[in-house]
Amino acid sequence: MPHISLPEGLPGISSGFAFRPETAKPMRDLAHVLLHENNTLCPAERELIATYVSTQNDCYFCHASHGAAATAHLGENAGTVDQVKHDFLQADIPGKLKALLVIAGQVQQGGKYVSPTSVEEARRLGATDLEIHDTVLIAAAFCMYNRYVDGLATWQPHDPGMYADMGKHLAEHGYTTPSGKS
Amino acid sequence: MPHISLPEGLPGISSGFAFRPETAKPMRDLAHVLLHENNTLCPAERELIATYVSTQNDCYFCHASHGAAATAHLGENAGTVDQVKHDFLQADIPGKLKALLVIAGQVQQGGKYVSPTSVEEARRLGATDLEIHDTVLIAAAFCMYNRYVDGLATWQPHDPGMYADMGKHLAEHGYTTPSGKS
Repeated sequence: MPHISLPEGLPGISSGFAFRPETAKPMRDLAHVLLHENNTLCPAERELIATYVSTQNDCYFCHASHGAAATAHLGENAGTVDQVKHDFLQADIPGKLKALLVIAGQVQQGGKYVSPTSVEEARRLGATDLEIHDTVLIAAAFCMYNRYVDGLATWQPHDPGMYADMGKHLAEHGYTTPSGKS
Repeated sequence: MPHISLPEGLPGISSGFAFRPETAKPMRDLAHVLLHENNTLCPAERELIATYVSTQNDCYFCHASHGAAATAHLGENAGTVDQVKHDFLQADIPGKLKALLVIAGQVQQGGKYVSPTSVEEARRLGATDLEIHDTVLIAAAFCMYNRYVDGLATWQPHDPGMYADMGKHLAEHGYTTPSGKS
């Protein structure tokens, strides 16, 4: 049961967004820039970073919904999502993305865990400053979203079909337009 | 030295904001709603929650700047800021704020650490659902801001006068208008 009286029937973060529209707007806008707008990291890569951090933070709603968004972007390569959740070093993804996931995992532990060595390795594999910046900020932002979702004890149904629909909506429309579910 | 080529001479988060204005805007907007706009929790109380979480996350720039903003709001009671940083249970603050700081500390550890007992205690001492919501989100948001500031290894000078000026600017104008320093 949620810790406060959140609107019923809205899963995860959408209940917090409906409770407090004033904070929902900048939180949606930030996710939209980081995950949906044009970027040299493709949307699937950015959703995989969000999914990985949410898995490390053990936030079911976030890793299920962003995993579903990554799945919608990846199409026939959707098996990659589970690989990234469970052991990204063995996943069928480019070395640069693995190096960025290492940085994301360090951010999840705390900002000071990011090491010059891991940044150098990402750069050696082709990451730009902007890609490193966005990786740090996606990981940091999901340390917020995950804590918001679980810190309010939001309702988080385990319904694969619901997350698949949500993932398709997010992959297509991004984060500024509520779907009623996302 | 920062992990990426951030603009020089801008301390802490302001260098990240200058590097990526597209993400700066929603991050500034969120801080403005949470810390500066009208609220039944006064600005000093909300800045103390931000300061406490930033101290727990060991983020010098954030606990110095938001501690300075709290100081600017508190005036002659500014000694409270150090008390909250080091042992808030002994600080000269209302019981309700102590109960909210307990919740903020749980969020800092992870969303699932927030206990029904701590929420009940805050409610018993007069906290509303909106105040509990905003406490959870301030704490969650500073888990983002702190990781952003330290995850980029931003320049964080130790200059009390600079933070005092920044704190006064933030207390007066809030977070949507860059001061060139904040």
